[in-house]
Amino acid sequence: MSKLKRAQRIAIISRMLVENPSNVFTLSSFSKKFGAAKSTLSEDVALIADAFQKEGIGRVITKQGVLGGVYYCPHFSADKAYDEVLKVSRILNDPRRILPGGFLYWSDILSTPSIVNTLASIIAMEYLNSEADFVLTMETKGIPFAFAVAHQLGVPLLVARRTSKVYEGSSVNINYFSGKGSLEAMSLPKRAAKAGEKALIIDDFISDGGTALGMCTLMKEFNVHIAGMAFMLSEDPRKVRHVSGDISLMTLSRSSEAPPYVQPAQWLNERRSKE
Amino acid sequence: MSKLKRAQRIAIISRMLVENPSNVFTLSSFSKKFGAAKSTLSEDVALIADAFQKEGIGRVITKQGVLGGVYYCPHFSADKAYDEVLKVSRILNDPRRILPGGFLYWSDILSTPSIVNTLASIIAMEYLNSEADFVLTMETKGIPFAFAVAHQLGVPLLVARRTSKVYEGSSVNINYFSGKGSLEAMSLPKRAAKAGEKALIIDDFISDGGTALGMCTLMKEFNVHIAGMAFMLSEDPRKVRHVSGDISLMTLSRSSEAPPYVQPAQWLNERRSKE
Repeated sequence: MSKLKRAQRIAIISRMLVENPSNVFTLSSFSKKFGAAKSTLSEDVALIADAFQKEGIGRVITKQGVLGGVYYCPHFSADKAYDEVLKVSRILNDPRRILPGGFLYWSDILSTPSIVNTLASIIAMEYLNSEADFVLTMETKGIPFAFAVAHQLGVPLLVARRTSKVYEGSSVNINYFSGKGSLEAMSLPKRAAKAGEKALIIDDFISDGGTALGMCTLMKEFNVHIAGMAFMLSEDPRKVRHVSGDISLMTLSRSSEAPPYVQPAQWLNERRSKE
Repeated sequence: MSKLKRAQRIAIISRMLVENPSNVFTLSSFSKKFGAAKSTLSEDVALIADAFQKEGIGRVITKQGVLGGVYYCPHFSADKAYDEVLKVSRILNDPRRILPGGFLYWSDILSTPSIVNTLASIIAMEYLNSEADFVLTMETKGIPFAFAVAHQLGVPLLVARRTSKVYEGSSVNINYFSGKGSLEAMSLPKRAAKAGEKALIIDDFISDGGTALGMCTLMKEFNVHIAGMAFMLSEDPRKVRHVSGDISLMTLSRSSEAPPYVQPAQWLNERRSKE
């Protein structure tokens, strides 16, 4: 590549950082790539970091030490995070989404990349220092959301299945009680996780937490620690609570008298007033 | 926001473009955001486009006309695309991946964001002009890949399920013969797609194409056209071929005599020599 101007290096470095969140790039690798001095590249990175900081979305972090370098990670101001979640809540409160039986149609939201990626970034922000080795979800609806969180944290996604598959080799299987009280099965290939690792549990929805507890039980079988649990939507209030320490972005209230109603979770609103 | 320098504007515009592939931004919106003249921003965008072009990864396209503006789309040179696919093929040919029965373990690859996003970008590149309104996949394993392709094309993802769900409302259900000859069901909410739209079918694996044909049948019920069909991995040779016009990134050869073997698809290699 012929020698580039500062503005061009900045465009390329910005692209590399943004496309690979949580991935540490060394200044030496940039220096080699662009044929420029490390001090020059350090200035480039500082300019990008400063621009993102002013903009309030996304952050460029410099990591010191032998394994040092720079990486991009999701960041939203408390106001911006709340606004984004509020926007999605409003979409979900469209009366045309109410189905017979009082159910809420939201499958489309769960697989619309622009929405899912924004909400995933807001969740990922909370677990940047969790040292999670992977994200775990249970098939099917939460997969895009869990995948997007894993992408932001720069870790792999593991998908627990309802049954074990021949093409996944020997597996660990557990049984758990679902929200509806029925006994369900959950399976994960043995080779998917190693003892001592940390899992971040991500799913689209939590009601009484039966499935979440199932995932915790599964992780116990692997001797894997739980780094956290986060959901896009949470039933409110929860009559039964099988797990604790979980967070969610929105709450869903429903009763036999009123239609389902979605709003941003309280903690998002509280943090906002503190900022 | 206080007035930014060119380098800072370039960092922010690069981030916006890269985080929202196929999303058209008008120069007016940039002009308003940065408080700078459209001619200045036009120069910024030209600098970014030029830098990405030199780098060979990703492209910034200027769209003329009333709905004009600029957008980012995936791009790899033929060599780079081949190299990336070859890298994944080599990972898959690790003998430790061979399971009892000659199956290949690759669930981990299907949900590792860095790999999935790169392969999805290579596929999305082929369908930039397909005018697909959405990506369709069948649960479960191909969801992250299909989601990543949808993200690159800036369209939603639709996930067909094995059974219809109460929380998805009324649905269209079809039956199809799977590769193993068993009769399976496929379901999609009625409100998920509109007549006249175009679907891009994406899945992780194609063998004889039974599931792919099922998705085509399902789309016919919705009066939706097929804009294309693409897979990460394809059985080679295919004994039966229920569909045509599909592409895949890698081929999988297996027989009772030899272990499974994965290699980049022929078209990726051919295109390379032509470039």
